[in-house]
Amino acid sequence: MFSQTTEYALRVIVYLASRDGEPSTNKQIAAATLVPSGYLAKILQTLSRGGLVRSQRGLHGGSILVRDPVKLSLYDVVKVVDPLRRIETCPLALNWHGAQLCPLHHRLDQAIGEVEKTLRSATIATLLAGRNDRRPLCPNPSTAKTTR
Amino acid sequence: MFSQTTEYALRVIVYLASRDGEPSTNKQIAAATLVPSGYLAKILQTLSRGGLVRSQRGLHGGSILVRDPVKLSLYDVVKVVDPLRRIETCPLALNWHGAQLCPLHHRLDQAIGEVEKTLRSATIATLLAGRNDRRPLCPNPSTAKTTR
Repeated sequence: MFSQTTEYALRVIVYLASRDGEPSTNKQIAAATLVPSGYLAKILQTLSRGGLVRSQRGLHGGSILVRDPVKLSLYDVVKVVDPLRRIETCPLALNWHGAQLCPLHHRLDQAIGEVEKTLRSATIATLLAGRNDRRPLCPNPSTAKTTR
Repeated sequence: MFSQTTEYALRVIVYLASRDGEPSTNKQIAAATLVPSGYLAKILQTLSRGGLVRSQRGLHGGSILVRDPVKLSLYDVVKVVDPLRRIETCPLALNWHGAQLCPLHHRLDQAIGEVEKTLRSATIATLLAGRNDRRPLCPNPSTAKTTR
């Protein structure tokens, strides 16, 4: 139900949040998140355009999370990379339904609304709380070579 | 979030349910649901294989719903055409997570679970209850030519 892009982007954000503002190279991020490097570059670009990440090239460069993980929800990330599309008008274009959805599309939209609610209710910070071995990351990624 | 196939299949099932066991030609179904005819044939085949619909060729042929709309949920239909995939194991294949999901994948799976719950809680019969002009169907589809 969630796209590969969403899954990968969430891992990247969780990793950057775990780094407490320390810049991470693409190699470090890839090692911790298992996101393939070509895909990672594309995702970092989208996250950067969406104002969640800042990437800097060069010797001491790397990517950092620019939002506070305590205030950043899973929904905020999904919205940037692969937004949930609520059903606002009749997909059959039946204009006599007016502004109201029929019971089918009302129910489908309700399901999408539940997803939105669940993703809004969890912050990136809560995903990192608790035991380290429960983090959605590979162990010791910071020991990966920092050469990009 | 829901695929085109899911959307179309639900419309087809709602229409067949509205026909009260009267066989419907592909032309009638297409006129009522606005599902393109090539796509419709594929969807009817899937629904038939899934045991929801029976189609018969010939002069007095057509498709009928073989399940009771009062007992058939939206989830039952989705399960046949484009099943929700729950997250049961770590997508990162981190085997030290064991049987438990990390907080990220637990939360994503929780969202998929909410969708499942919402789709399970509505039957096809409830979508057809109430005013005719609120049905997710085009008006007077039964007046469409019955020649296939």
